[in-house]
Amino acid sequence: MTQITLSFPDGSRRDFDHGVTAVQVAASISNSLKKQAIAAKVNGILIDLQRPITQDAQIEIVTDKDTDAQQVARDTTAFLLGAALKQMYPEINFGEKQVNDDGFFLDTDKKPTQVSVAELADITKAMEQMIKDNHPIERQLMDKTELLAMFSADPYQSAIINSYDSVQIPVFKMDDFIDFGEHALFPKASDLKHFKLLSVAGAYWQGKSSNPMLQRIYGTAFLNDADLQADLKRRAEIKDRDHRTIGRDLDLFFVDPDVGAGLAYWMPKGATVRRTIERYITDKEIAAGYEHVYTPVLMNLNAYKTSGHWAHYREDMFPAMDMGDGEFLELRPMNCPSHIQIYKHHVRSYRELPIRIAELGMMHRYEKSGALSGLQRVREMTLNDGHTFVSLDQIQAEFKKVLQLMMDVYNDFNIKDYTFRLSYRDPANTEKYFDDDEMWNRSQGMLKAAMDDLGLDYYEAEGEAAFYGPKLDVQTKTALGNEETLSTIQLDFMQPEKFNLSYVGEDGQEHRPIMIHRGVISTMERFIAYLIEMYKGAFPTWLAPVQVKIIPVKNELHLKYAEELRQNMRQKGLRVEIDDRNEKMNYKIRDAQTQKIPYTIVIGDQEVQNAAVSVRKYGEAASASEDINMFVDSVVADVNNYSRTND
Amino acid sequence: MTQITLSFPDGSRRDFDHGVTAVQVAASISNSLKKQAIAAKVNGILIDLQRPITQDAQIEIVTDKDTDAQQVARDTTAFLLGAALKQMYPEINFGEKQVNDDGFFLDTDKKPTQVSVAELADITKAMEQMIKDNHPIERQLMDKTELLAMFSADPYQSAIINSYDSVQIPVFKMDDFIDFGEHALFPKASDLKHFKLLSVAGAYWQGKSSNPMLQRIYGTAFLNDADLQADLKRRAEIKDRDHRTIGRDLDLFFVDPDVGAGLAYWMPKGATVRRTIERYITDKEIAAGYEHVYTPVLMNLNAYKTSGHWAHYREDMFPAMDMGDGEFLELRPMNCPSHIQIYKHHVRSYRELPIRIAELGMMHRYEKSGALSGLQRVREMTLNDGHTFVSLDQIQAEFKKVLQLMMDVYNDFNIKDYTFRLSYRDPANTEKYFDDDEMWNRSQGMLKAAMDDLGLDYYEAEGEAAFYGPKLDVQTKTALGNEETLSTIQLDFMQPEKFNLSYVGEDGQEHRPIMIHRGVISTMERFIAYLIEMYKGAFPTWLAPVQVKIIPVKNELHLKYAEELRQNMRQKGLRVEIDDRNEKMNYKIRDAQTQKIPYTIVIGDQEVQNAAVSVRKYGEAASASEDINMFVDSVVADVNNYSRTND
Repeated sequence: MTQITLSFPDGSRRDFDHGVTAVQVAASISNSLKKQAIAAKVNGILIDLQRPITQDAQIEIVTDKDTDAQQVARDTTAFLLGAALKQMYPEINFGEKQVNDDGFFLDTDKKPTQVSVAELADITKAMEQMIKDNHPIERQLMDKTELLAMFSADPYQSAIINSYDSVQIPVFKMDDFIDFGEHALFPKASDLKHFKLLSVAGAYWQGKSSNPMLQRIYGTAFLNDADLQADLKRRAEIKDRDHRTIGRDLDLFFVDPDVGAGLAYWMPKGATVRRTIERYITDKEIAAGYEHVYTPVLMNLNAYKTSGHWAHYREDMFPAMDMGDGEFLELRPMNCPSHIQIYKHHVRSYRELPIRIAELGMMHRYEKSGALSGLQRVREMTLNDGHTFVSLDQIQAEFKKVLQLMMDVYNDFNIKDYTFRLSYRDPANTEKYFDDDEMWNRSQGMLKAAMDDLGLDYYEAEGEAAFYGPKLDVQTKTALGNEETLSTIQLDFMQPEKFNLSYVGEDGQEHRPIMIHRGVISTMERFIAYLIEMYKGAFPTWLAPVQVKIIPVKNELHLKYAEELRQNMRQKGLRVEIDDRNEKMNYKIRDAQTQKIPYTIVIGDQEVQNAAVSVRKYGEAASASEDINMFVDSVVADVNNYSRTND
Repeated sequence: MTQITLSFPDGSRRDFDHGVTAVQVAASISNSLKKQAIAAKVNGILIDLQRPITQDAQIEIVTDKDTDAQQVARDTTAFLLGAALKQMYPEINFGEKQVNDDGFFLDTDKKPTQVSVAELADITKAMEQMIKDNHPIERQLMDKTELLAMFSADPYQSAIINSYDSVQIPVFKMDDFIDFGEHALFPKASDLKHFKLLSVAGAYWQGKSSNPMLQRIYGTAFLNDADLQADLKRRAEIKDRDHRTIGRDLDLFFVDPDVGAGLAYWMPKGATVRRTIERYITDKEIAAGYEHVYTPVLMNLNAYKTSGHWAHYREDMFPAMDMGDGEFLELRPMNCPSHIQIYKHHVRSYRELPIRIAELGMMHRYEKSGALSGLQRVREMTLNDGHTFVSLDQIQAEFKKVLQLMMDVYNDFNIKDYTFRLSYRDPANTEKYFDDDEMWNRSQGMLKAAMDDLGLDYYEAEGEAAFYGPKLDVQTKTALGNEETLSTIQLDFMQPEKFNLSYVGEDGQEHRPIMIHRGVISTMERFIAYLIEMYKGAFPTWLAPVQVKIIPVKNELHLKYAEELRQNMRQKGLRVEIDDRNEKMNYKIRDAQTQKIPYTIVIGDQEVQNAAVSVRKYGEAASASEDINMFVDSVVADVNNYSRTND
């Protein structure tokens, strides 16, 4: 029998028989390692202990000390979940299965009733019984044709089997349950100890809404209970912060795929937050020297051919509309070509530069339906967009000015958790980028100098610039842990070229401006999703849809005073509601807290007598009596101060 | 020879030879009538004096006392214009020609350079020479084939000739110039005395942008000089008011068919006006109990099938977009189905009614490119839209509330020139309308009662209601004289039925609400076009893009003070600019007046010394010195008071 050579992490090498398994390799080292072994990593790939190794390789035995072992635990859980479901519902079919950093999921099509969350306890019990029975899980190879015959009744599994190129397919078998695919499982069911089935959601087969809807069961598993419990706690917190949950509970927005996937409807409360932010950022930008415009959401397709979007970005664009007369209109995927029209509408002079064009620009991007998520991933969005046209020597000052605007805005929103990433072109592959060495070198230097000047920390990413210029991104994370760009400043040497932009210089000659794309608070959709998660729905007073809730103790005695108070506060621009429902006072107070309203005030005899209010701030248990005028003034100050406590 | 009988306006009848001409008929009455005769009307149709009359008919001889004669003058002018152009540019071809109430136009394709406005004087001279030469204009019939051969080099004239069904075609001939078509011309060129060539504009052949662009020459003609001069004065005034001219001169907006026909780009100044109005109306509506929302501009096509728009309104809608997965999205032509989604998102109770949903709702309507005009007729528009959901017995109170809001808004904009039109169903054809007699009778009565209650004058239009309910329109006129709807309130019994809307009544049962569509200031586009024309571009201070222009006498001495002043005023929310260009002071003052800026202030030594400003209000010749603080306060008061002088 031929031999293969395996290299170990400590650098040693040994020869083994061709086809040796990882468990045999572990046993050859020590009996205790054999007992601890869960899987192996061969050339960096996680493999099952029973899989034959057939060539020279690096090998590493995986034990429960390695985080890689978590993946084995999750794969094993998914396997046992399948086995339990098949035992409980023999007619069931299985769709996709995936193990990832977050846990795993398994798609099924249980009929006629779907798998419900309530059933997860019973399914868990069945899995626990299997763990107790502790039957062995065996790996073997089966012929594709044999496997296809075995799964002929299951259209999804058949399709997955057919997607294999090889004649033989690895399967794992426990009693008469068979699952296939190349992964690593625990050698016996009893090795699995710390798992949890989490939730159920609908998922289209292959992610296409024209395909049948399956039930996706989510779960996770760890190697010890402490890790599992920590993860479950983290999940509860995420759910607490998830903007989709909060958006529904606070009646801020909804998305209904029946009237349009990825198209958000902003209910009055969510619309109030959005309107407040839109006015805030518009005023802020105008004060910073931007000229706000309105440009059409539609544009002649030719403009996107000129800009290059049609050639490179077409998949993310909506279908063009044939308007007759040879005109094709396109829902714009970005606003730059529109702002270029504004720039080109006049002959521009160096005296006017920098010209700063800004807009709350609505755009449409075709995201796959599977990628859509609440307000975070939508198909129609309104971007806080701006384009500044500068000369080369103005880049540093303008970049700094945008940065200062950003920092100012972050401060007003109390945003603190973000990092800066400065992206340069790859110095080893300059030919991959827009061809103007001087422009790149000078501008990259200017961006860096501006950051240093402002004393900001940043990460430098060589080779991550766009084709058309270097950029700065401000990165943050969503509740679900996805990285997201909050703000961006991108230099663009290319569009001014493509659209033949110019300005008349001091020398009377035509010069080419540089374009800076910048977004301070990204899209209204994404930014408000971010804020909802950051504030956990408890908006600061200046943003809160309802800022003050007035609760009269008895309508017949105190409603009139409450109404006067509301009128008084509304005239000062505050958003005030009265809760005059026929409910107990404590119920109303609790309800105002659930709605996360910044100020709840109760009006009773004493308050009417003393021209006072009894105030409870959101999140505080106790209420305090305050003079009515002082209270109103303090709320107005709170709003004007963006609810910052001390700065 | 056979005879025909002609009847005259005085009731008399006489027999004439078959084929008699109108000039012969006139001569048969009196020699003076023959001399005065310009054309005739036969059975109400204007015909040339030389055209044979071949059947019994009503006849009326047209003299220069009849306004119909104006048409003859214009047709003759267009004929002579053609003759002059052909003489000056023998290679020229001719497109369409049209005579109408406003004058006439003739399309040509002069090459290589187009006809310019500057050339109109020379062309006029050539026409005047022809009038002096006074060669006869003769009518005759020609065979279509002969005519086609004659015009074979002119593709446009050939196409027009081919559109005739008849074998013989009437032509008018003067020397060797030939024009064809059935109309009435003066018998000789010298009869034309009072005409004017007005302007030149581009026009696509047959109105299609894929066809060649021709040059359209506009002109007019009258029977006496007084009428011509009055018309030219009227045209100058229209031009003075035309929002397209003012919009260009004040740099408010532009439309560029190359990037999208009917799609408006709002330049910074126009955008400022729009933003001010949007915030104003939103705040006004919120104060009046409306809940503002944002809903998508796209919707699943199915919703418009449900609403009936797809069946009845499809021609005015944009093409649907195939999104894959069986989803078709449509750019919404109206916002009602979107607001219905907001209503349906919750179970509604009678306690909540009236529910008032409002939005600055962007919509798209497919208007033919020929119908597009500046901001008045566009394809993308943002409507000040609102939908109120009420019970039947709330109609009167709600209708009154909307009316009060309208009157309040008109007052703030100083709008005074409008009329009310109340449209009912046709009592003789009730089966043509939504079938609910009680609803119609009660609601029509309630609308009328509310109008009477508010003491408003109105016109009642029976049979002009929509299928789905009665309505009120507020009508006004554009500078060009077109009637336009400023505001509308429409009851709708049908959509609540189609979308199965309900609310839970006091009885615990489901009831059907009634929907009220209402727009107070119509679309931003149309309303601002209207305001531009009403104000002739001189916006009141609260709307003016630039409210105060500061002119330092000498930059080196007075610029600092000017900048402090600007900063001070900006902090008070005013829109202030400094003109520090190297130009003469008087030039800058004139420029500020041309820009129609409400306040122009000059800063010199005296002003700096006395903490004063020298103020000139728009339209006033003199300036006055004012204390600086009093001046700033007065501008702020002007803005807060919507620039009303005394109310």
